[in-house]
Amino acid sequence: MRIEGVEVMSVMEKLGTRKTEIDREIEVALAVGENEKLRAAMKHYPLAGGKRLRPVLAYLVADAISGNGPLTVPFGAGLELLHNFTLVHDDIMDKSDMRRGIVSVHKKYDTPTAIIAGDALFALGFEEICKLQVDDVLLRIILNDTAVAVREVAEGQQMDMDFEKRNDVQVKEYLAMIDKKTARLYFTAARVGAVIAKGTIDQIKAMGDCGYLMGVGFQIWDDVLDLEGDEEKTGKSFAGDIREGKRTLMAVYAMNNLKGDEKKTFLSALGNSKASRRTLQDAIDILHKSGAVSYAKNFALEYVREAKEKTSVLQSSEAKELILEMIDFLIRRES
Amino acid sequence: MRIEGVEVMSVMEKLGTRKTEIDREIEVALAVGENEKLRAAMKHYPLAGGKRLRPVLAYLVADAISGNGPLTVPFGAGLELLHNFTLVHDDIMDKSDMRRGIVSVHKKYDTPTAIIAGDALFALGFEEICKLQVDDVLLRIILNDTAVAVREVAEGQQMDMDFEKRNDVQVKEYLAMIDKKTARLYFTAARVGAVIAKGTIDQIKAMGDCGYLMGVGFQIWDDVLDLEGDEEKTGKSFAGDIREGKRTLMAVYAMNNLKGDEKKTFLSALGNSKASRRTLQDAIDILHKSGAVSYAKNFALEYVREAKEKTSVLQSSEAKELILEMIDFLIRRES
Repeated sequence: MRIEGVEVMSVMEKLGTRKTEIDREIEVALAVGENEKLRAAMKHYPLAGGKRLRPVLAYLVADAISGNGPLTVPFGAGLELLHNFTLVHDDIMDKSDMRRGIVSVHKKYDTPTAIIAGDALFALGFEEICKLQVDDVLLRIILNDTAVAVREVAEGQQMDMDFEKRNDVQVKEYLAMIDKKTARLYFTAARVGAVIAKGTIDQIKAMGDCGYLMGVGFQIWDDVLDLEGDEEKTGKSFAGDIREGKRTLMAVYAMNNLKGDEKKTFLSALGNSKASRRTLQDAIDILHKSGAVSYAKNFALEYVREAKEKTSVLQSSEAKELILEMIDFLIRRES
Repeated sequence: MRIEGVEVMSVMEKLGTRKTEIDREIEVALAVGENEKLRAAMKHYPLAGGKRLRPVLAYLVADAISGNGPLTVPFGAGLELLHNFTLVHDDIMDKSDMRRGIVSVHKKYDTPTAIIAGDALFALGFEEICKLQVDDVLLRIILNDTAVAVREVAEGQQMDMDFEKRNDVQVKEYLAMIDKKTARLYFTAARVGAVIAKGTIDQIKAMGDCGYLMGVGFQIWDDVLDLEGDEEKTGKSFAGDIREGKRTLMAVYAMNNLKGDEKKTFLSALGNSKASRRTLQDAIDILHKSGAVSYAKNFALEYVREAKEKTSVLQSSEAKELILEMIDFLIRRES
């Protein structure tokens, strides 16, 4: 909603009709199918009020390049459906009960329905992208790049799962994992936004890089929020990443730097689904004290700074300003 | 392999290099990715020696129309990968331990890896189809139709799961389910084969119908094989459909026609994962005695007869003969 006359307006509010267009496209897309239960399960996350960061990014990039943001809407909506499919499947694997403040799909329905709903969202995402009003030759490239991106997201998820069994994950490996698991969809959003807007090769390249850097910054900040965030605001359960044994940048830092009792306490909480709130709080305190949290924050800030630099290929415009604000928003948000 | 000079050569043997081309394309496609475990899980079913019925159908249809079978290979390979993704996910939901005589993906690896491998095969299937050497405008249509088909397969799977909780499923509902779950991919294979070969509208329409009819016949016969087939040949465990509570055409017939003790015995085996071999054999005997098995066989034969009639839009050719033999093969095979 626009709050006129108020100076401190969040970037999400400033997006105005852009986000409404995207929301509307997603809502209409999700009205398909004949099986009521499946349709409801498919809608559960996408209509629970996400921030639509990926479609918004594609839209703003195209707007900044040639004012062609509206052309990106089916692509952005498709990408959002693909992102949501990965959330549905990830929550099954991670045994997460909550997401966006609501119960997860496999908890609300059942695991088979959640697997199928994810698959159907995947297919629907591609149907949406097929609607793009761009040259057919461009559509082939966009669809192929998106399929590759989704496969890499799957590979990133596999790495994430593999890491949960290891205590020797290095920062470089962590970065390779979130490159695929998270940053790849931001990369694709920004890059394809530039392609649809018929940007120059320099702009297409820089926007892809910008998306990648934003994605890494976003994921690291998301992990920090999991520790520091207010449960009510993030909609996630307390210290979920620690309980699930996620190798976040903070956990990786801690496992490579902690010693003695602190390491023992931290490891006793990591991946321990039955850890008490007290143990989890101790683990969080150790992450703070050891410098792991500030290490991660600085890491995210550095990526965000570089992401902003990449926007130098864009001429001044309201859309460019919004991209810069959106990048800042990634590390200021509380949910 | 071709066995020259032998009159009784199976249709699979007569396919010769066609099947080799398809197999090779699938093998090369599956060499992607950096995560060894994921790559192995992705290869597990597609490289376990399937019959490639869907890609072969697309190939033969295009050959029969304009000799353009080779053009269909990336499409057929993509469709086969998509089919395999649905098998991987279905086996998780159905808790099936065996497939094609080998242990299922989630049993060999674990459920998260199987979910991810299915997702990655889905993406890879679309990457393959993007390679098609057809006009870009045609590719957009083919990709969209394939995405819709996959979504309908998911919907069919949801119906299949829903039916397992019901004792009042009707034949019409069963047919609506296998239309989506099984026949849709055969429909798409045959129809797109005709599209790629630049067939007439009549040919495209008739081939789609032919694929649909084949698919229904195939599924019903598959269910009969589950009862009658030799475990070693089918690679499936004994009476799996009954133990899993599948509402096959035979089960639907039985539930609507059995009475008294026979109904009671049958229902005690249906969906009972702990049913003894004796109880399962009793249930099978009841299906035979009640006429459910011959009802299903006749049903399949009727669909197969109609599928053959649809080939009248094709001129005489070796490929057309092979399509007819393939249709017959669907109801003669033992695995």
